[in-house]
Amino acid sequence: MDPQEISLEALMKINYGLYVISSKSGDEINGLIANAITQTSAEPPTIAVCINKDHLTHEFIKDSAVLSISILAEETPMKFIGRFGFRKGREINKFEGLDYKYGVTGAPILLEHTVATIECEVIDSVVVETHTLFISKIVNSEMINDKTPMTYDYYYQVLKGKSPKSAPTYLNSKKK
Amino acid sequence: MDPQEISLEALMKINYGLYVISSKSGDEINGLIANAITQTSAEPPTIAVCINKDHLTHEFIKDSAVLSISILAEETPMKFIGRFGFRKGREINKFEGLDYKYGVTGAPILLEHTVATIECEVIDSVVVETHTLFISKIVNSEMINDKTPMTYDYYYQVLKGKSPKSAPTYLNSKKK
Repeated sequence: MDPQEISLEALMKINYGLYVISSKSGDEINGLIANAITQTSAEPPTIAVCINKDHLTHEFIKDSAVLSISILAEETPMKFIGRFGFRKGREINKFEGLDYKYGVTGAPILLEHTVATIECEVIDSVVVETHTLFISKIVNSEMINDKTPMTYDYYYQVLKGKSPKSAPTYLNSKKK
Repeated sequence: MDPQEISLEALMKINYGLYVISSKSGDEINGLIANAITQTSAEPPTIAVCINKDHLTHEFIKDSAVLSISILAEETPMKFIGRFGFRKGREINKFEGLDYKYGVTGAPILLEHTVATIECEVIDSVVVETHTLFISKIVNSEMINDKTPMTYDYYYQVLKGKSPKSAPTYLNSKKK
């Protein structure tokens, strides 16, 4: 079937949050904005995290097999989202001057504008076209505060945010 | 690390929607409630759908390699969610008396309480503990109406809904 017949508006009705996914390679750390994550089992707790293959964070996750997820608050400023979502870790140190810590796996965990954090060890990965799904064991998670998590819908409808071309949901937002 | 140290409250801060995932095997059709889905690439459009291995719908998806997603509206009655989420397709015909159609792949597509639909062909699958992630090519999608999609958070906080033991997010909701 011709992909032109697909309603991108329909795909926009799927619900997502907004997250910073961080990882490391040696002493280097990096992170990016992602929306495409989902828990995959309860016992043991596992989660799938979808990352574009072109990104530095993708390279770091493949290298270290650890990652962290910072669940962003609804009140996260657009400037902050821009820093993690539209700047390149190959050009700037995205974590510089920000509040973060290192977790039990050694992965950096961003704490700024963060409601809760999840730390993972990658146990499997599947390449899906332009992206990799990192299937990960959840080894730690923590509440940071009681703020409302950001939804993808809020980011689009209220903040008038955009998706970079590398996002799995890029086309949907463009046609919207 | 001891899984007891994981904050289930933190995992509940991940955003999801609520969906009916349907499939077929020969002339038989079935569907269930799921929350764990995420788009995985934009061009070509693909999506990952996470289903517990014990379910009849899991068996049908493995058998036919087609599935549909009905994105449920916020106003979906609890009784309807109970029918698709807590009853067994091995015991009742969940679609009986409801509004549904067959898509281009031959998969049944539930239209009742549905905001938008997505139809898929499975291209890969990964077993993750108790669940399978069906990686699927999106072959069709349609808007049905302009209603607000249900979020998982709304289902828990407002409707006071529960998760069945087979859900990937079961433990989180139990401890909440």
